[in-house]
Amino acid sequence: MASTEGSKLWGGRFVGDTDPIMEKFNASIAYDQRMWDADIRGSKAYVKALERAKLVSTDEMEQILHGMAQISDEWSRGVFVIKPGDEDIHTANERRLKELIGAPAGKLHTGRSRNDQVVTDMRLWLRSAISTLTDNALQLITTMVERAAAEIEVLFPGYTHMQRAQPIRWSHWILSHAVALSRDVERLQELKKRVNVLPLGSGAIAGTPFDIDRELLQRELGFDSISLNSMDATGQRDFVGMYSEFLFWASLCLTHLSKMAEDLILYSTKEFSFITLSDAYSTGSSLMPQKKNADSLELIRSKAGRAFGRCAGFMMTLKSLPSTYNKDLQEDKEAMFDCYDNVQAVLQVTTGVMSTLKINQTVMEAALSPDMLATDLAYYLVRKGVPFREAHGLSGKAVFTAESKNIALNQLTVEDLTAISPLFGSDVSSVWDYRSSVEQYSAPGGTAKSSVAAQVEHLRNWLKKHAQ
Amino acid sequence: MASTEGSKLWGGRFVGDTDPIMEKFNASIAYDQRMWDADIRGSKAYVKALERAKLVSTDEMEQILHGMAQISDEWSRGVFVIKPGDEDIHTANERRLKELIGAPAGKLHTGRSRNDQVVTDMRLWLRSAISTLTDNALQLITTMVERAAAEIEVLFPGYTHMQRAQPIRWSHWILSHAVALSRDVERLQELKKRVNVLPLGSGAIAGTPFDIDRELLQRELGFDSISLNSMDATGQRDFVGMYSEFLFWASLCLTHLSKMAEDLILYSTKEFSFITLSDAYSTGSSLMPQKKNADSLELIRSKAGRAFGRCAGFMMTLKSLPSTYNKDLQEDKEAMFDCYDNVQAVLQVTTGVMSTLKINQTVMEAALSPDMLATDLAYYLVRKGVPFREAHGLSGKAVFTAESKNIALNQLTVEDLTAISPLFGSDVSSVWDYRSSVEQYSAPGGTAKSSVAAQVEHLRNWLKKHAQ
Amino acid sequence: MASTEGSKLWGGRFVGDTDPIMEKFNASIAYDQRMWDADIRGSKAYVKALERAKLVSTDEMEQILHGMAQISDEWSRGVFVIKPGDEDIHTANERRLKELIGAPAGKLHTGRSRNDQVVTDMRLWLRSAISTLTDNALQLITTMVERAAAEIEVLFPGYTHMQRAQPIRWSHWILSHAVALSRDVERLQELKKRVNVLPLGSGAIAGTPFDIDRELLQRELGFDSISLNSMDATGQRDFVGMYSEFLFWASLCLTHLSKMAEDLILYSTKEFSFITLSDAYSTGSSLMPQKKNADSLELIRSKAGRAFGRCAGFMMTLKSLPSTYNKDLQEDKEAMFDCYDNVQAVLQVTTGVMSTLKINQTVMEAALSPDMLATDLAYYLVRKGVPFREAHGLSGKAVFTAESKNIALNQLTVEDLTAISPLFGSDVSSVWDYRSSVEQYSAPGGTAKSSVAAQVEHLRNWLKKHAQ
Amino acid sequence: MASTEGSKLWGGRFVGDTDPIMEKFNASIAYDQRMWDADIRGSKAYVKALERAKLVSTDEMEQILHGMAQISDEWSRGVFVIKPGDEDIHTANERRLKELIGAPAGKLHTGRSRNDQVVTDMRLWLRSAISTLTDNALQLITTMVERAAAEIEVLFPGYTHMQRAQPIRWSHWILSHAVALSRDVERLQELKKRVNVLPLGSGAIAGTPFDIDRELLQRELGFDSISLNSMDATGQRDFVGMYSEFLFWASLCLTHLSKMAEDLILYSTKEFSFITLSDAYSTGSSLMPQKKNADSLELIRSKAGRAFGRCAGFMMTLKSLPSTYNKDLQEDKEAMFDCYDNVQAVLQVTTGVMSTLKINQTVMEAALSPDMLATDLAYYLVRKGVPFREAHGLSGKAVFTAESKNIALNQLTVEDLTAISPLFGSDVSSVWDYRSSVEQYSAPGGTAKSSVAAQVEHLRNWLKKHAQ
Repeated sequence: MASTEGSKLWGGRFVGDTDPIMEKFNASIAYDQRMWDADIRGSKAYVKALERAKLVSTDEMEQILHGMAQISDEWSRGVFVIKPGDEDIHTANERRLKELIGAPAGKLHTGRSRNDQVVTDMRLWLRSAISTLTDNALQLITTMVERAAAEIEVLFPGYTHMQRAQPIRWSHWILSHAVALSRDVERLQELKKRVNVLPLGSGAIAGTPFDIDRELLQRELGFDSISLNSMDATGQRDFVGMYSEFLFWASLCLTHLSKMAEDLILYSTKEFSFITLSDAYSTGSSLMPQKKNADSLELIRSKAGRAFGRCAGFMMTLKSLPSTYNKDLQEDKEAMFDCYDNVQAVLQVTTGVMSTLKINQTVMEAALSPDMLATDLAYYLVRKGVPFREAHGLSGKAVFTAESKNIALNQLTVEDLTAISPLFGSDVSSVWDYRSSVEQYSAPGGTAKSSVAAQVEHLRNWLKKHAQ
Repeated sequence: MASTEGSKLWGGRFVGDTDPIMEKFNASIAYDQRMWDADIRGSKAYVKALERAKLVSTDEMEQILHGMAQISDEWSRGVFVIKPGDEDIHTANERRLKELIGAPAGKLHTGRSRNDQVVTDMRLWLRSAISTLTDNALQLITTMVERAAAEIEVLFPGYTHMQRAQPIRWSHWILSHAVALSRDVERLQELKKRVNVLPLGSGAIAGTPFDIDRELLQRELGFDSISLNSMDATGQRDFVGMYSEFLFWASLCLTHLSKMAEDLILYSTKEFSFITLSDAYSTGSSLMPQKKNADSLELIRSKAGRAFGRCAGFMMTLKSLPSTYNKDLQEDKEAMFDCYDNVQAVLQVTTGVMSTLKINQTVMEAALSPDMLATDLAYYLVRKGVPFREAHGLSGKAVFTAESKNIALNQLTVEDLTAISPLFGSDVSSVWDYRSSVEQYSAPGGTAKSSVAAQVEHLRNWLKKHAQ
Repeated sequence: MASTEGSKLWGGRFVGDTDPIMEKFNASIAYDQRMWDADIRGSKAYVKALERAKLVSTDEMEQILHGMAQISDEWSRGVFVIKPGDEDIHTANERRLKELIGAPAGKLHTGRSRNDQVVTDMRLWLRSAISTLTDNALQLITTMVERAAAEIEVLFPGYTHMQRAQPIRWSHWILSHAVALSRDVERLQELKKRVNVLPLGSGAIAGTPFDIDRELLQRELGFDSISLNSMDATGQRDFVGMYSEFLFWASLCLTHLSKMAEDLILYSTKEFSFITLSDAYSTGSSLMPQKKNADSLELIRSKAGRAFGRCAGFMMTLKSLPSTYNKDLQEDKEAMFDCYDNVQAVLQVTTGVMSTLKINQTVMEAALSPDMLATDLAYYLVRKGVPFREAHGLSGKAVFTAESKNIALNQLTVEDLTAISPLFGSDVSSVWDYRSSVEQYSAPGGTAKSSVAAQVEHLRNWLKKHAQ
Repeated sequence: MASTEGSKLWGGRFVGDTDPIMEKFNASIAYDQRMWDADIRGSKAYVKALERAKLVSTDEMEQILHGMAQISDEWSRGVFVIKPGDEDIHTANERRLKELIGAPAGKLHTGRSRNDQVVTDMRLWLRSAISTLTDNALQLITTMVERAAAEIEVLFPGYTHMQRAQPIRWSHWILSHAVALSRDVERLQELKKRVNVLPLGSGAIAGTPFDIDRELLQRELGFDSISLNSMDATGQRDFVGMYSEFLFWASLCLTHLSKMAEDLILYSTKEFSFITLSDAYSTGSSLMPQKKNADSLELIRSKAGRAFGRCAGFMMTLKSLPSTYNKDLQEDKEAMFDCYDNVQAVLQVTTGVMSTLKINQTVMEAALSPDMLATDLAYYLVRKGVPFREAHGLSGKAVFTAESKNIALNQLTVEDLTAISPLFGSDVSSVWDYRSSVEQYSAPGGTAKSSVAAQVEHLRNWLKKHAQ
């Protein structure tokens, strides 16, 4: 053939029967071995269905179950030996089964395809991962809520645009992040529903031609429901949606934590000095002896990018793939493992940081300044009947007058203020109290003590309800 | 001042009191005017709460409500005039209100901040957008399900890796995509819950200091619940999560449709020729007179990238922003509008394509080939007791023998087959029937007629349940 | 036909000969009209090549050139009327030409395809856009370099990990950003080379079958070279690479500016107070009268996300597209225009910000603290022969001692220091001078005055060399 | 302290002096050990500069050089032992040096920071990686060019929109991809220039205070130039730009290859059957004995997503980081290694695929159909003076007539054609020859044999020029 001769002429890499680079490129055992337990559980359930369908005898089933138990034991003791040719965890476990029990091993894959086997394994693995992440998130929220309860008296500046805006409770800030995390947990629970669907019994694409009892499989493996369409199930249409959702969930949750980390990094600068990180979460410099860096918070901040990159990469790999299984989908597992590992580490480290940081209450309260009460000054006038837009303008004039005189806003005399509006009276002095100020915000969601305490209670109840 | 003089020395762009480029950069009216109706509805509810809190009189409330009705009328008739200085829709509406009713207009913003106003508007807008998209998606699914019901007898090749795999029903393929879309609708409903939360009454950051009845606001605006923490609500922490979710939802839904489009583009090539698009969804070439291109499908395929880009862009903008409002968040609206417009157009065009394409049943069925029954040949042996792994190997041998003889797999004689395994008998001829083949796959989710019909019924019920 | 009847049964959107949503979806005139000038220039050159190839007469060429000049005039006066059916700028211009000159207009497209026409237009447009962006970037760099020269005496804290690290010159900080921008300009020039390649004469895919003189086209349109392979050129393989590069360039340049903006936002907080933005680049709050927000910087910071989103979206659209033109590529233009507009606005606004901000030199210098000289204290010992690792440890001990005594590092007595290492002598007092400290860093790239001045000179020369 | 007690109350994870999860989170040795050689080379050069600056004695330099050689030997023999506390490769190597040579090891880090050390290592590593990738890419291009030269006589359909467009040479298709790759090599060379800049001598941020001869370092390490600003260099501003560029380059190159893979996957479907992959690059199915899947091409197609995800993740991590080093930048290395590994594998596997695939020339040429000459039919009329727009319409009519008669376009009689235009004569039969058709496209870049041969020559010369 011309093209065979050609291959020499064209001077490409020598290629014999196999190309070792291709084999390495093709193999997934290096990372998918992490699903060994899910793979074994799936096979154990499957052989029971085979037995019920009389595709294996009871004795063969027992042998397979016994062999699988032995393989499980090898994995958990760390003595399972991966051999050349074990391209993935499924091949490896079946190869080992054959070594252990011989011929009956050859019946295990009856009516099953790697397509439905892989997605079953991944769903089992991810279901368990979601449980762990939920636990980690609940622990973090608990820490935050209890810290908010304990430090409810502490006031500090609330910022918008990184400029001092209004006095708020430190606990109000903590809870604003805790509430966001609670929604992340709720999202994860919704996702879990979509994960917990049995694909096994879908074959490669067309379904199973044998009398495989899919309800038996569902019960054995603890799934909530059974996949509706075999192409959707094995072609990973279903899985892919749910799986991309997990990657996005990880990005979103880490983006929330990146914002919290950014705030805390700011608060731990010399210039803000609101908080001091525990030494366990700080590091020094190889050059500068005085440095104490908030490395933990910077790592937390960075991981949103990493997770989103995984999500972006997988979405791009998916884009315009034809339906059903294509090898491109092999990209799914590393992204899933990496997102899981990073979210888990971030949740735990954040819990550690939030448990151990010290606040510098004196500095926090000293950072409150009278100009942060300019809104309250406007509200003083509103309460005397001035339309807000006008009151806002008059308060702005007061701010300007104080700046011109180079004094603090609360140092303006009643005369100064009366010159701006005759409605100002001596009772204006009541405005200049930070604690009174925050207590005004007692509507639901506000920063008054009663309102913040109600938020704490709400979240405590939510936590009880969501404890696994 | 040194730096003022310096500004001349440094030779930058001349900058007086204002920089027109900065003003344009800062303004959002060009696109946020699209929320005029939501903004007016929000203000109408708010003034009722102000009246109840005695911050406006009943008469003032009436004037404001009346003025707002007039503004609404101007917008809907397309005669509202945007003026210089109207940097956003909120400013524009309030400016117009003042022109219409004078002084009382200045009271409307009492205790409200643009922060809680904007997110209220966006939630109202998005809630309505979600309703529309749900309708569009349900219409597409209905079209697909009914087409699947009508064409249930048509067989064609199922592919994996873009290689012919097993005979399946054309309806099985249609439903695999319909099922994926039904999950997208379910995701959208979950999201709607998170969208439908009232933020109004959260002020800029600390809450509202007045006796604003947030439950009244909730009822007036039809929200399901009230935001829990004012920083979370106005700082857009809550909104941002939910909003990013919408962008991701759009990407995911369009990625699903990109896969369906990719399949259909393939099926409409000369080489496949399984389907013919309606002329309404095809275009010609400016150069080549014979061309008929599936432009509609290519546009559908392309939009997944666009939507994901919007999601990626916004997630990156969010990453490590400090909490509460920062101007960076202004990026949110254009992305939301663009994703909405594109998903809506894609859902409608896909419905049109799926309603009008013609299938070429003869070509589809002629594309089935005996080698696609090699799995069935293996199952023939399995049913005679051969372990699947061995049966798979024997069937592979049969494939190889047929290829060597350059004949189709079903042209092997019983002698040819017996040479491979003595278990082959004359009843093997029953394997070579495509309709019998698909009928084997009668377990739930399979491609047998009964199973596909059950999927149709399931989806019809699902559609009834989800009809809005 | 069954499927026509079916279309009623399936209940999709009604679709007649055309679907207005599809037509809108398909049309690009709303945004590609922006290339009217490039399209006309391309056609004027092309008709000259047609004349030379005797495919139009000299008289026909004159008519076409004259008609094109008239169309150009209509566009520039804003009176060109887009009509229904003008799906893109190419169709619109040719339709108008026909109205103006009749039959000869029908010859203009001879041997040309919309494929090579579109990419020619886009290259012409982008070449000009690159020139403008280069000018904008050079103006920003000039402003920064001259500001650095003028304020070279100002010291302030250099930060790593957002913690005070070492004293540096303010100019050193400015130049660190200017140097990064100079590389962005160099990247843009490299890209320009790849943009400036003539695709015209490539037809739809196979090339041109007529005697079109591509060198004539190259000269007429000012391209540097001629595309090598017609599929590559028209199938947009070449263009797509170069074009994605532009989107990425925009993201990278804006990411650089997002970092500079982040620094400046920090420096403009109350807590840092190093700089004060001009009012032209700040805005107030609708609620809080005292607020002055650095909106300009926040907008600058946000645009990196937007541009990267455009890049991500387009890369995803491209991924695994088959070669040559597919309608998916229609996504290219809006992304290009949007990135251009945003980079241009950001460069100009940043120039305005950098021209007009005021520095608060007293605050900057007051922020220097003796602990920032701990590295210098270690170097004092290194100069007396102590290995650096040991010196670093001894200096760390000094920092610890000062902290224990609650005094500044430079308030340790010689006795305190001698207790830590006998090598400390009374000359240690020379360490505690910030100006002496920075003067040590006189190696190339360092923060000593001579070194910073050399950087200024280097960049001034670079600017001269790159002035367009 | 309240907060210490609080840590118990708040119920977070127990945290003592250290948190093992934090330590693992913080450490990079697991992956950055891959730069052991670059790290050692950097230190060897640095100690020479220290000796010249008299910061170490000649004897100490010799000890350090000798120790470093021994460490290098340990790494290359795979016997270097990583110990607890070795958080990164830099710490590990210096720790080992101290074990080997004692006290003088403590002088190696004098005036150096991990900041300038890390970026020096990464630049050395990446420079070498770029060389390897360039070699791999050149080998692939060579294979493609030589294959194009050898198979220049083979015609097949050129597609646009995945619809048959015009007859082209198979070699023309190959070269369209080779040309794109040649631009990728050029981009990589431009990037190399920016990589090959010495940062060492920049310290942590401010520069080096000692008399370190940076030109000596440049020469020793083979860098092209010296970084201009120490904050830019160590703060990774410079590096980050160049490094993100590498990730984007990888994405772009892999996107190009994803398109080529998509074409080849199509061509290897049963329906197209233009090519047959070597068995070395195909795999079978665990279920379907007849399947032969183009797994290699699917893997190639998938990696564009993966690389772009890495780029997206890192860009997002960078967005709005303050300048200079922040721990977030630790994300850089894994992304770089992963992109390198994947591009390298893809280039090699693609070379293998392109060297060994067989083309099915008969099928390719049989896929040419007369309707693909409709453009030529229009040109026939153009050559007789009909304006192209009119000729295009007349040819369209001929296509329609043939379709109505259900015959091929070339089976229309002269009478049929004359009825459409009297200009058709008996010489129209000359149009129906595919080889004559392609020979028309002889302008530069076209698909005529002479033009394709010129492209081959151009690329052969380019390859010679770029051979490393």
